[in-house]
Amino acid sequence: MSQDAQVTAQRLNRVREVMEQAGVDLLVIGPSSDFRYFTGHAPRLSERLTALIIPREGEATITVPRLEAPLLAHLSDRFAMAIWDETERPTERIAAMGREAGVRAVAVNDQFWSVFLLQLEELLPSASFQSASKIMTRMRVVKDPAEIALLREAARRTDAAWEEFCATVRLTGRTEREVAVDLQALMAKQGFPTLAFCAVASGPNAASPHHETSDRVIQPGDPVVIDFGGEYEGYYSDITRTPVAGEPHPEFVKIYEIVKQAQQAAFETIRPGVACQDVDRAARKIISDAGYGEYFIHRVGHGLGLEIHEPPYLVEGNTQPLEAGMVTSDEPGIYIPGKWGVRIEDAVLVTEDGAERLNTVSRDLVSLP
Amino acid sequence: MSQDAQVTAQRLNRVREVMEQAGVDLLVIGPSSDFRYFTGHAPRLSERLTALIIPREGEATITVPRLEAPLLAHLSDRFAMAIWDETERPTERIAAMGREAGVRAVAVNDQFWSVFLLQLEELLPSASFQSASKIMTRMRVVKDPAEIALLREAARRTDAAWEEFCATVRLTGRTEREVAVDLQALMAKQGFPTLAFCAVASGPNAASPHHETSDRVIQPGDPVVIDFGGEYEGYYSDITRTPVAGEPHPEFVKIYEIVKQAQQAAFETIRPGVACQDVDRAARKIISDAGYGEYFIHRVGHGLGLEIHEPPYLVEGNTQPLEAGMVTSDEPGIYIPGKWGVRIEDAVLVTEDGAERLNTVSRDLVSLP
Repeated sequence: MSQDAQVTAQRLNRVREVMEQAGVDLLVIGPSSDFRYFTGHAPRLSERLTALIIPREGEATITVPRLEAPLLAHLSDRFAMAIWDETERPTERIAAMGREAGVRAVAVNDQFWSVFLLQLEELLPSASFQSASKIMTRMRVVKDPAEIALLREAARRTDAAWEEFCATVRLTGRTEREVAVDLQALMAKQGFPTLAFCAVASGPNAASPHHETSDRVIQPGDPVVIDFGGEYEGYYSDITRTPVAGEPHPEFVKIYEIVKQAQQAAFETIRPGVACQDVDRAARKIISDAGYGEYFIHRVGHGLGLEIHEPPYLVEGNTQPLEAGMVTSDEPGIYIPGKWGVRIEDAVLVTEDGAERLNTVSRDLVSLP
Repeated sequence: MSQDAQVTAQRLNRVREVMEQAGVDLLVIGPSSDFRYFTGHAPRLSERLTALIIPREGEATITVPRLEAPLLAHLSDRFAMAIWDETERPTERIAAMGREAGVRAVAVNDQFWSVFLLQLEELLPSASFQSASKIMTRMRVVKDPAEIALLREAARRTDAAWEEFCATVRLTGRTEREVAVDLQALMAKQGFPTLAFCAVASGPNAASPHHETSDRVIQPGDPVVIDFGGEYEGYYSDITRTPVAGEPHPEFVKIYEIVKQAQQAAFETIRPGVACQDVDRAARKIISDAGYGEYFIHRVGHGLGLEIHEPPYLVEGNTQPLEAGMVTSDEPGIYIPGKWGVRIEDAVLVTEDGAERLNTVSRDLVSLP
């Protein structure tokens, strides 16, 4: 799966401008969503390094191990290919490119493996190294219309799976894992051959925000936090709903409504120019005012795109202003250890004058059999 | 899934000895097979850092984000837990531990994300940083009897799936993807809920050693390289066979037999004390002598354990001697671009006086309908 050559060229041109502003001479990108952003392809992560090398001036090059070169052959129309053999060290190739270009400042993608960075630091002792976070955030944080269309479609298909889930799936007396298998099948019907992630957390397990789906049997009255998403042409969906098995406890209904209000308050705060932390604060104020502040133990949201978690992070301390075209999650929660939890999450697009939910299925408390 | 507390303690004691020999004061391990080696658990890789911090002296500590702390709660009997909140930077916690211990030499696991290493380098400017490769290879490259039992069982189950595959699956006229789905189902029957990897490469696709399974329809006479494996309690299987759809071409039979001989020659070379590169040379000599040297474009093997690829690497230039208890793949191949390819791979255990194949299914050329 390649990307349009024009998109590649535009992104390469733009990143060179951003590199110039950042004073970076060489950008080194290993297998990651950053690699995919520039090529349409995400190579496998392994001890055999594939990397995209973008000098501020000169040709962008992909270093690739010989046995994986056929996988990237379609990219040779737009990148120089430096194919390395099993007895070579690819970092020596990259360092040689750096020396030829006389680089002083090198940026590497966040997820670049340290074993390779440490080799580059040793091979280019006079260069300074930095994270490419800021450069890549500048490139990726605002989505273009084609990216928004893919995120919208990923959310639409995920919503469709959730609606069929609510209409057909039984919770009570079944294990979390069985419920997850049902959900996976419904997502497959919507064109997601695998789930990118899926947490089904019932009863006390729902108090663990990143619970790993288990063999616990769902009991009558249990709330069940269901957080899942899939990848659609490189872009992710990410939604959470918390239905209840049978009749909800009145106290649970109360905290559910608080979280629902907090999620709406965050949503209403989202518009261009608002600081990321202010969205978090809006949700947190509702939950804190209701007396549950200590049980809302995570940020209210994260960006969504070629990664499930990416900038912008909606968290206290992040004063970055929102811009139209950003896509973030809006997902406050309350987690009472040993008892239960609730989270409600939608993907939200920042529009010119406000915000639009990409997930539009009901946020009301649902009781499932 | 936790590991026995005694195993944890033994491994921590031993790594401290290895750190002392290596002159390393602090070992920092992010989510990875190295983390799993010390804890029995592999946390998710994300922008929220979970890390295991092992000082040469003093208590080993796990830093974990608050919302994922419940997932590691079972480890608090053997590690100090440093739970960080959403507004903190975990690398500051790690740097503070380093400063308190007066560390000068820090080693980080190979796959540690550069974004975190660069933060640590900035926060601990007087410390030197190095890859933990050598330390972790010393720890992990020779498997203990319990690890060997798991690798043996993973291989046994994988062999069983392959035997059923040969008895039941049709190749001709079906897509690579359909064949992969069949294989996945047979592996599921053997207790692998998902495949760790699976490449089905037919006809000309077989010339790409790491081909990604496609919708190509398999033609009569096509060789089909099938390379797959699964994870069994943390340990991997990895096998390749190259059956033919229907009647093989006489020229293909010839190269198949060369690869089979090369695989056997490598196997017969494996015993304690032999340099890794000599195993590669043994296979390469057979293939080169037959005139196909330029088409054997990768090393002959890699270690197998908590990773699918790990030391020892059987590659020219690696003079490390084999030791009893190592487990490696033995997988020569010949790849003729545009035409076809063949690879035969088994997992092999280095024994006290030689070697033992963990995969024991037939390596003879098989014709499937």
